[in-house]
Amino acid sequence: MKKVNIIEIGPRDGFQNIKEFIPTEIKISVIDKLVQSGIKKIQACSFISPKAIPQMRDAKEVAEAVISKYPQTDFFALVPNLFGAKAAAAAGLKEIAPVISLSETHNKANVNRTVEQSLEEIGTIRQELPDIKITQDVATAFVCPYEGRMEVQPLIDLIGKIQSLGVHSFTLCDTTGDAYPQQIKDVLESVKKAFPSEEFNLHTHDTRNMGIVNTYTGILNGVSNVETTLGGLGGCPFAPGASGNTATEDLVYMLHLEGYDTGIDFDLLLEAAKFLRSNVSGNYSGHHINITACE
Amino acid sequence: MKKVNIIEIGPRDGFQNIKEFIPTEIKISVIDKLVQSGIKKIQACSFISPKAIPQMRDAKEVAEAVISKYPQTDFFALVPNLFGAKAAAAAGLKEIAPVISLSETHNKANVNRTVEQSLEEIGTIRQELPDIKITQDVATAFVCPYEGRMEVQPLIDLIGKIQSLGVHSFTLCDTTGDAYPQQIKDVLESVKKAFPSEEFNLHTHDTRNMGIVNTYTGILNGVSNVETTLGGLGGCPFAPGASGNTATEDLVYMLHLEGYDTGIDFDLLLEAAKFLRSNVSGNYSGHHINITACE
Repeated sequence: MKKVNIIEIGPRDGFQNIKEFIPTEIKISVIDKLVQSGIKKIQACSFISPKAIPQMRDAKEVAEAVISKYPQTDFFALVPNLFGAKAAAAAGLKEIAPVISLSETHNKANVNRTVEQSLEEIGTIRQELPDIKITQDVATAFVCPYEGRMEVQPLIDLIGKIQSLGVHSFTLCDTTGDAYPQQIKDVLESVKKAFPSEEFNLHTHDTRNMGIVNTYTGILNGVSNVETTLGGLGGCPFAPGASGNTATEDLVYMLHLEGYDTGIDFDLLLEAAKFLRSNVSGNYSGHHINITACE
Repeated sequence: MKKVNIIEIGPRDGFQNIKEFIPTEIKISVIDKLVQSGIKKIQACSFISPKAIPQMRDAKEVAEAVISKYPQTDFFALVPNLFGAKAAAAAGLKEIAPVISLSETHNKANVNRTVEQSLEEIGTIRQELPDIKITQDVATAFVCPYEGRMEVQPLIDLIGKIQSLGVHSFTLCDTTGDAYPQQIKDVLESVKKAFPSEEFNLHTHDTRNMGIVNTYTGILNGVSNVETTLGGLGGCPFAPGASGNTATEDLVYMLHLEGYDTGIDFDLLLEAAKFLRSNVSGNYSGHHINITACE
């Protein structure tokens, strides 16, 4: 049976966009339900300045609680810099996702650094934390909200520089949800040809109703690890009113029909999504959580 | 350049689900805007008992108005029986879409006839209206809300019977939005192998967030004519709260990125969708009409 690994990033990419602080115990309860549904890998939080993203100010408590409760689950966190990486390691995480943007403009807006400075930071993280697994988030890998559609050669150049720092796992992020299937296919073909032994994951948004088709196209073109959010929670800060990330439960529903093994119980996952919506007000773009019958 | 023909069916499949009667002039204004955006084929209404669907009681006025205003546009109507077919022809329509369900249970629920009786009716329509173009809607071609997932052989058998009545154009309808990409691909391959010289169109719903990926899969597998609704208006009566049909503007947006020629101006189409939403309250599942910036 074909396998796809669903990486749930709602507790980070979903929660970070919610203005009202979500109580720590609710965050942990959502992760409880995700684990119970069979999800094996979860981005539990980000270790980022509480001034920048107050919603993540309890990252340490969340990470420590879920790591001790679920030793079989892979938890990881997004980190913008060495400080965050060290905090993640101190909390007991074995994996981090530093973030860099392909677009210079977006990198500056996102982490207030040049791409060159972010590269240096990744090198320092790699050296100072030699045992932690790094999966490198490459934001705006397809489209930048400021610079428009990105080219593949600069992406390959950037990946090459990160690879030379000792990083071998990458998540190509369609930050705005503006990538389209043929672009996903072309970019994947190019990067896999350039780096045949590295791992490429996909992170998609559903801003323009292409989240499912883009993720599916990625899977058909060799991606095994895809990042989605429960309920489709999240959003695109550059497109107010827009849908969020690709909804985990919608993707899982389709993948099961397509004959993929995700290891997830869809009914429990949908329960988790409904629990989330009952406890956290936000922008839910998942289709299944809006259906009141026929489940 | 690869071409896809977008068949807008919102004025029928979208409007029929709206409880409050939409004034005739609003219906016509929506069609005005659709035509202005470049849409070439529109299902303007259905000729159905006003007791069954009161929303369509002005079908004749709508059809006559738009036919006389836009002689270059292909208008057609859904018809449940000979009576409706004759009314459509009398209003000046050159094409009709009779409806039959692959599922016996759904056919009974939808048109209160056995499949056999519906077949007889199609034969009568073909004989009594020899000059009208018939594009046959095959509802529940993939999934029935009562009988579950459908098999392809009974579909081929049904198409064969309809073909023998003198009908050569078919629209395979995913009535509930439960088809999945591999099923779309398999069914299309089978029916095109069985009937290599007939035309097969696709009608999709976005109930489970698969509307875009299913339509795209159809196009990649040789479908040239796809039915969608402006704004994603519509719904699945078997799944309360569910999203509607696949949104025309979302599909067009993606197809243009993919390099397809639709002959449609996306900005005008989005304006049409927003005009629709401003004038008709309903369930809009289109993603673009919810984005307030970044267009």
